[in-house]
Amino acid sequence: MSGGPVVIEVTRGPVVESRHEGIAAVLKADGTVVASWGDIDAAILPRSANKPIQAMAFVESGAIERFGLGNEHIALACASHSGEPRHVETVRAWLGKVGLSEADLECGTHPPRLQATIEALARAGAMATAAFNNCSGKHSGFLTTAVAYGEPTRGYIRYDHPVQRRLREVMTDLCGVDADGFAYGTDGCGIPTLATPLRRLAQAMASMADPSRLSSKRAEAASRIRAAMNAEPFMVAGTGRFCTRINGALPGVAQVKTGAEGVFCGMLPGLGLGVALKMWDGAARASEVAMATLLGHLGVLPPQQKDELLHPPVRNVVGLLVGELRPAKSWLG
Amino acid sequence: MSGGPVVIEVTRGPVVESRHEGIAAVLKADGTVVASWGDIDAAILPRSANKPIQAMAFVESGAIERFGLGNEHIALACASHSGEPRHVETVRAWLGKVGLSEADLECGTHPPRLQATIEALARAGAMATAAFNNCSGKHSGFLTTAVAYGEPTRGYIRYDHPVQRRLREVMTDLCGVDADGFAYGTDGCGIPTLATPLRRLAQAMASMADPSRLSSKRAEAASRIRAAMNAEPFMVAGTGRFCTRINGALPGVAQVKTGAEGVFCGMLPGLGLGVALKMWDGAARASEVAMATLLGHLGVLPPQQKDELLHPPVRNVVGLLVGELRPAKSWLG
Repeated sequence: MSGGPVVIEVTRGPVVESRHEGIAAVLKADGTVVASWGDIDAAILPRSANKPIQAMAFVESGAIERFGLGNEHIALACASHSGEPRHVETVRAWLGKVGLSEADLECGTHPPRLQATIEALARAGAMATAAFNNCSGKHSGFLTTAVAYGEPTRGYIRYDHPVQRRLREVMTDLCGVDADGFAYGTDGCGIPTLATPLRRLAQAMASMADPSRLSSKRAEAASRIRAAMNAEPFMVAGTGRFCTRINGALPGVAQVKTGAEGVFCGMLPGLGLGVALKMWDGAARASEVAMATLLGHLGVLPPQQKDELLHPPVRNVVGLLVGELRPAKSWLG
Repeated sequence: MSGGPVVIEVTRGPVVESRHEGIAAVLKADGTVVASWGDIDAAILPRSANKPIQAMAFVESGAIERFGLGNEHIALACASHSGEPRHVETVRAWLGKVGLSEADLECGTHPPRLQATIEALARAGAMATAAFNNCSGKHSGFLTTAVAYGEPTRGYIRYDHPVQRRLREVMTDLCGVDADGFAYGTDGCGIPTLATPLRRLAQAMASMADPSRLSSKRAEAASRIRAAMNAEPFMVAGTGRFCTRINGALPGVAQVKTGAEGVFCGMLPGLGLGVALKMWDGAARASEVAMATLLGHLGVLPPQQKDELLHPPVRNVVGLLVGELRPAKSWLG
């Protein structure tokens, strides 16, 4: 199945007020395209949507056993978390276990996602630190991998650091194309983000979902990552978040991850499929509805979440229902 | 001049990471199309971008003189303000002048725009109130108009309340089409937002910029509104905001106003033109670059702001320049 673009509409009263267009690909690990919409050979920046791939080298390093880490740390390595207390405390404790601290994080500091967290900090007279950065778990994974291999931790965000080279080696293995040849930009957290054809990103996710072609060590790491995302869905995102809801509701069935600028990736191990999508305008609200629509199309969307995830309400300031998001009829609506 | 869609690109490193499409129209008050891009007969919801039009009945009511109001209140009636202390205090004092209070506002309460304001409230153990709502100035104008005409203030946000009927009468006069025939949705602040062909929205702005066809009372109101937006640009938006920068830099030359979901309107009295644009995906970042590009195209963009408004930087968490927004070469780039 191959069709026109992904289209998500935003209504207000009787009017389609806004609309979002994108591309999506569903692949098998061998590169077979099961379904596609739009030009899936377009190169996109995966941003945080490929964090499960970026966590592979960390899990393969043996650091989990060596430092007494668990599912919560693996999930955090795959996370764009909301900077809630449990995220921050777990990152801080983790860095302590490997002999490091927040001062070693090179991701920088941004305000936490939730107003309640911002207010709690202000009331306590405290400031957000690097552990609050939504990428602090991924960066802790990078640091831990460097420690595990006896490499310098400083500069672990640079394109030529062994940590980043290892990510490209994993990516090359999973997607079937040499990732060293990809152009790249600098991600929000400072690491390179590789311009990846959407088709190849979906193939890499399929290789995580169905790792039968991978080395046994790599296949084992993929399985552990999938299990951790389902076991600790809060750690992957946070209160009320799409990734937390889906990963918590579909253990063994689906593992999904959002990325900045409208990217979403997913693994469907039961079906042996990988999914990747990009909304061209970068809108997260649309990428969520698009991922929910794809999950529904593939028959794995939890029935009790269908209405709200396929048709999220648009409410005004006083809470009145004034519209909704929805997949367009021209796509899968 | 009539062309393809408005296109704004977002780059990261060497890659165009995201792109936004929209429509734009530049008209004279007599309905002549001076320039257009995309389908300008598409009906769009103006949201807050037509607040200067919504302020007309308030200024025409005579309430300015009667209640001792000034430019700061007219600018607030046209504002989507950031809920900074001066906005909030001015709204509260204004409502007191007309014998009302925040309890009469029907716009609801949302958190203020700036993290610093949120933190200051939290430190003081205080909560945001309706005066912090970005629309509280517009709603104060509505309430004041009802008081001026001796109408009940309660329910002033409803489609059939005299305040809202008067807005449609003004809109009809300015845009040349019966606004009672427009479909409508409910805006974030509770009032009806009328599905207006973009061409007609631009014509209405042109009628504000060149009010020679209007009654003398209405023409005088348009002139006062334009002057107030230039005289009190902070009141129209707030610290660092696009509307505040442009309206402050171009007295007598341009008055611009943003709206939710990627809408922007502008008046260019020196040229006798009105401008309206809508980014289909609703992205404010793109609507700002599009408005700056149109102002540049029409020769009124302040030279010292050109680089930053046409090519706003994309920075990562640590402040590194990692990309930019820009008009696409296929449009006016």
